[in-house]
Parts: sequence; structure tokens; C-alpha cells
Amino acid sequence: MNTLTRDEIDRELKELNGWEFSNDKIHRELTFGDFRQALSFMVRVGFEAEELVHHPEWRNVYNTVNISLSTHDAGDKVTSKDINLAKAIDKIYKTY
Amino acid sequence: MNTLTRDEIDRELKELNGWEFSNDKIHRELTFGDFRQALSFMVRVGFEAEELVHHPEWRNVYNTVNISLSTHDAGDKVTSKDINLAKAIDKIYKTY
Repeated sequence: MNTLTRDEIDRELKELNGWEFSNDKIHRELTFGDFRQALSFMVRVGFEAEELVHHPEWRNVYNTVNISLSTHDAGDKVTSKDINLAKAIDKIYKTY
Repeated sequence: MNTLTRDEIDRELKELNGWEFSNDKIHRELTFGDFRQALSFMVRVGFEAEELVHHPEWRNVYNTVNISLSTHDAGDKVTSKDINLAKAIDKIYKTY
């Protein structure tokens, strides 16, 4: 599992929506109309995570979901697995 | 919404399973067999939270769920709403 360089990460982030890089992870905060929407979004992303065999670290408080992505098997650094999951998350979020 | 005193909280915690009080909240860390179980647990608790009109602050990483409960409308202190949600969570977790 190859980790991405900072340049590679910055290039990928330009293709994503609202993700930021800090502490060796990429992060995005999402808001929803209410708790039900936030939780249903998490379920929808959960299926994607299972398919990609890559899971987010995320925190939910009512209508907000804060997501952090890094790859455990790559020493908790950012890899293409994180970028792929971030792309899937962006695509799902657009439907909300 | 009445906040509970520290004595009242300690008394309630004795009736609960594995909850700890710190930083004005009660916390419990739960582990599951895998991500699917953790997420399905969160959905199950989500329905309870909607019914109680009280929602957790929680963080999920693969098969772990860290839950913190306090009551926003009571200045983010612990109230009976938190104890009731904690009881519901303990009951649901027993089925996993």
C-alpha cells in the first residue's frame, strides 16, 4: 500500500469537495437536514466502505458528520484507498 | 431540564454497564465483531434516539463505537435524558 506524497494529496484534494489535509489524514465535515438524514447517509456510506474494504473514522452529533480518512495498513497515512472512499462519499453526499 | 448532581450521576452509573463520567458527560466504549455489526447497532440506537428525542455524540472506527451523552438544552450537562438513552443503549448492546 503506497502512501501519497503531500503534492499528490493536494492534487487529489482539488478534485474532491471540501476535504482538508491535517495530521496525516484527510477530513470533511458534512451537515444534514436532521439526524435521520445524517444516519441514513452513514448507512449508505457504510455499504460503500464494505465494498471498498476500507472504513472511515467518523463522528456524528445530530445533523453533522465529521469524517477522517487514513489507511491503517499504511501506518495511518493517506493512500489511494482514502481518495477512493472520499470520492464515493462526495458522490453520495450530493444526493442529500 | 434538571441537571443531575455528581452523586445522582454516580448512583445511576451503578445501574448501567461500563459507563464513566468525565468532562460533564457520560461515556461508554463498545466493541463489535465487525463494522457491519457496529453500524447496525448505531441504526438500532438511532431509532431509540429519535423516539426519546435525544441524540448521542458518537464516534465509530471499524468495530468500535465511542458514545458520549450530555444534554444540550441543559448546558451540555448530564440529565435524566442521558440516563434513559444510556439504559436503552445498554439494552440494545446486550443483543449483540
